[in-house]
Amino acid sequence: MSATGRGRFVTLEGGEGAGKTTLARSLCARLAAAGHPVLRTREPGGAPGAEAVRALLLGAPAGVEWNPMSEALLVSAARREHVAATVAPMLRAGGWVVCDRFTDSTLAYQGIAGGLGREACERLAAMATGGLRPDLTLVVDVPVATGLLRARMRGEQNRFEARGVAFHGRVRDAFRAIAAADPGRCVVLDGAASAEAVLEAALAALRARLGAPLGLRLGPTAGDAG
Amino acid sequence: MSATGRGRFVTLEGGEGAGKTTLARSLCARLAAAGHPVLRTREPGGAPGAEAVRALLLGAPAGVEWNPMSEALLVSAARREHVAATVAPMLRAGGWVVCDRFTDSTLAYQGIAGGLGREACERLAAMATGGLRPDLTLVVDVPVATGLLRARMRGEQNRFEARGVAFHGRVRDAFRAIAAADPGRCVVLDGAASAEAVLEAALAALRARLGAPLGLRLGPTAGDAG
Repeated sequence: MSATGRGRFVTLEGGEGAGKTTLARSLCARLAAAGHPVLRTREPGGAPGAEAVRALLLGAPAGVEWNPMSEALLVSAARREHVAATVAPMLRAGGWVVCDRFTDSTLAYQGIAGGLGREACERLAAMATGGLRPDLTLVVDVPVATGLLRARMRGEQNRFEARGVAFHGRVRDAFRAIAAADPGRCVVLDGAASAEAVLEAALAALRARLGAPLGLRLGPTAGDAG
Repeated sequence: MSATGRGRFVTLEGGEGAGKTTLARSLCARLAAAGHPVLRTREPGGAPGAEAVRALLLGAPAGVEWNPMSEALLVSAARREHVAATVAPMLRAGGWVVCDRFTDSTLAYQGIAGGLGREACERLAAMATGGLRPDLTLVVDVPVATGLLRARMRGEQNRFEARGVAFHGRVRDAFRAIAAADPGRCVVLDGAASAEAVLEAALAALRARLGAPLGLRLGPTAGDAG
């Protein structure tokens, strides 16, 4: 039994271009193939109200440059909607939820890199989540230059990606510090490795941290299929 | 010298149809006529980012029914923008700010009537305002039926106005309780009186609470012009 209900709540964290989206997709495919009901979602967003807030955050109206506190409040409003409408019901129903970004992103981006501070982020996290915490957080770590290059090659550039190398360096350091401070919940994965290697490392973390009864079947490259 | 800088910060609070907008307009006209630089503003809104959040709150996307915590977080994000971009600069410049709704509305609507509780609202208020508090709060009080009738006659019906008599009764009680608990800051005005009488009562409160040096000239109906 998970602290989050009968289901399992896994969050993926990391900077731009770390490969979280690719990992989320492949991880969910493996979980589904192993017979687990699984929901893939991401923040900000994942519920109708939360998606409306996401649009405000990523495509701010002309002339608007949100300050870190406003950003943290908006992200938290979206999170409250996402948890209540999407994440918590799935966990109560016994499913897995794999979520691309959660409270650690607020702490890394607004709290640490943005200078808002840890205390405000922790208070907002408590309000937005009602105390829900991930069972496992996979921090996908890549050098800043690698991540930004990947993000550019994707052809996307949102307000966060546009913030410059120094900011993203602070974000990377923040995620590593968050993981180091909470080793019972967080596992750092080497996002510079191949997508297959990142997936296998993630599956190994799921087995080690969330227990063998998950029935995860590893792919042939891991040598222990069947 | 005000606690809010060199200027004066006056907030108007109360339920739907209490007459806050009319009072704000006439009060600002009197302050301007007395030679004070004055800014009339209202929440949620009053800055570009805050107006974008207001649109989300009052005209929620189809299928979205914000819960009180999400509402309070969104309002607080708008407030952070409003205070930083609009209110604080005017106060620092020595002007008056007359603001239609502020933190007391969050406490009354989401905190008390909506059931979110006082503590969350107070924490959010501290985050959103950076500690800025009104020098004077005028709570315009009208019976719920009167207020809702006025709001309907205005032809407006937003999500808050549509919430039913019992909810608005809790809002009215909440505002009266807030005023009773903070008599050094709050003055309750009888919003069922004529607009002229409400204005004169407001001006009397400004003179009594914020001091004679304001140079306010009362209108002829008050009998002490000149």
